[in-house]
Amino acid sequence: MTRDAASLIEGARAGRVRDVARMISLVEDGGPEVPALMQALAEVPGRARVIGITGSPGVGKSTTTAALIAALRRRDDRVAVLAVDPSSPFSGGALLGDRIRMQGHATDPRVFIRSMATRGHLGGLAATTAQVMRVLDAAGFNTVLMETVGVGQSEIEVAQAADTTLVLVAPGMGDGIQAAKAGILEVGDVLVVNKADREGADRTVRDLQGMLAMAVRPPTAWTPPIVRTVATSNRGIDDLLTAIDEHGEWLVESGAGHLRRVRRARAEIEALALTLLRKRLDQAGAGTALDRSAEEVSAGRLDAFTAAGRVVDSI
Amino acid sequence: MTRDAASLIEGARAGRVRDVARMISLVEDGGPEVPALMQALAEVPGRARVIGITGSPGVGKSTTTAALIAALRRRDDRVAVLAVDPSSPFSGGALLGDRIRMQGHATDPRVFIRSMATRGHLGGLAATTAQVMRVLDAAGFNTVLMETVGVGQSEIEVAQAADTTLVLVAPGMGDGIQAAKAGILEVGDVLVVNKADREGADRTVRDLQGMLAMAVRPPTAWTPPIVRTVATSNRGIDDLLTAIDEHGEWLVESGAGHLRRVRRARAEIEALALTLLRKRLDQAGAGTALDRSAEEVSAGRLDAFTAAGRVVDSI
Repeated sequence: MTRDAASLIEGARAGRVRDVARMISLVEDGGPEVPALMQALAEVPGRARVIGITGSPGVGKSTTTAALIAALRRRDDRVAVLAVDPSSPFSGGALLGDRIRMQGHATDPRVFIRSMATRGHLGGLAATTAQVMRVLDAAGFNTVLMETVGVGQSEIEVAQAADTTLVLVAPGMGDGIQAAKAGILEVGDVLVVNKADREGADRTVRDLQGMLAMAVRPPTAWTPPIVRTVATSNRGIDDLLTAIDEHGEWLVESGAGHLRRVRRARAEIEALALTLLRKRLDQAGAGTALDRSAEEVSAGRLDAFTAAGRVVDSI
Repeated sequence: MTRDAASLIEGARAGRVRDVARMISLVEDGGPEVPALMQALAEVPGRARVIGITGSPGVGKSTTTAALIAALRRRDDRVAVLAVDPSSPFSGGALLGDRIRMQGHATDPRVFIRSMATRGHLGGLAATTAQVMRVLDAAGFNTVLMETVGVGQSEIEVAQAADTTLVLVAPGMGDGIQAAKAGILEVGDVLVVNKADREGADRTVRDLQGMLAMAVRPPTAWTPPIVRTVATSNRGIDDLLTAIDEHGEWLVESGAGHLRRVRRARAEIEALALTLLRKRLDQAGAGTALDRSAEEVSAGRLDAFTAAGRVVDSI
């Protein structure tokens, strides 16, 4: 390892925000020094609790995140916030909006806020978030809030990276079909009806109860509680924190937490292994084979399965 | 190929809806007969035009799709609709909601409507949609409407599978930041302001114009037109169809259409190649190596990069 990398790790472990930020950037960029950095952090015990926060645009994820930060800070947690933005793969950047709205905490040195884009990561989002978690963990943050935008594959990956996933809904966002569409319900450990002072909140709660009642779950499984909040005025945030803590205890007692962490490690390793293999596809002249066969397949002279078999054989 | 598969292909080519549906199910299930089926369809010329329809929940995608079906039927196109539902990976099913709302066309034999889940596909969504397109193409559908739910990675993949992507927005859905969050603007070939009779439509159009003005584009690139629609009453649907057709002509004239199709084939081949490699990871006892190293990584005794290297070396 270079001296630079070593002092970076030392700085991050000492909790120096600037070094934490630089290490996360290195991880995001996926440069050649990442494996060595990760090797140096492999022994981090993984104490940090990761809370995923997801839901459709407009349900109040950022406000809820800000309210949770405040509540966690009151009990002296060190809090890191990752805002994962899967929506803008081409610009590669994450939006400032959330950060601006969380400004209330921007000057607190024990709160670390960071946006993260979901593309271009070595080993995909799953691997990158696992690496970023390890950095934050090493830097002594004991709670990581991971906020995602929208609904989709990225949210699922984020849910898989979290110990406890909150799914937020809001009344009057077209419950019924739209809520089911939002489907991420299925990944929620705690269901949050935010903006619960609005008309229709009772109905939204009933809808969620109905969906939970219909779900097929093994008897030992966790039943997601439904918590009402009005994040803008901090209402229900303490209840929410209690629900999160109860889920955390269940994770430990049931052994589900250990299983989640092993599964997460497995996903990380598999993602990195596939990245290595993809690299071999592109190197070794196989990239050219790929390009050639793409022309043939698009012209109808070859089928994609045969082409894929040839490409694999070439590495 | 089995006699069954051969007669299935014959049926699909003759446009028998039941055989088309069965072939799509086979492709979705990713069974062992899929490569042979695809080999038999490799020479399909790829005439069908694929139109992607995306946007946040609630902007009116299904209504717009239904209005487009009607307009396309008036000029005697044979139309297939794929409703891609990325939100429910665990139940593996797609929702009936959209199909119900499109019931108006459910009895028209020249309109084929199908929901598709996005998980569990051989080679991922990109490869599966490419295969389904080939089936629909072979069956003589000349326009395929691909509607997606929500915002995220899946939408990007869908956009990559389409010749022309429509991005729908609606006034008053929290324009500014939320619209930028919806970010899929960047994948839109035609931007549609639906519900254009609502207050705020002018502002939404201006916001989009502003975003287009800020975007950096090469001079030869396509500039997405902005079309106003009220899909519920068919207003603007003819303009939308004109915009779609103009984009289609540009694709041909500029050569961009050919490039898109080659890039799509490349993505399909790469996805299938990685699937083959992933299979090898799980077979050959490497699955066990993966499980073992997952335990070690989660316990902090090994780092994920070293583990990934070992797993790759084991195949």
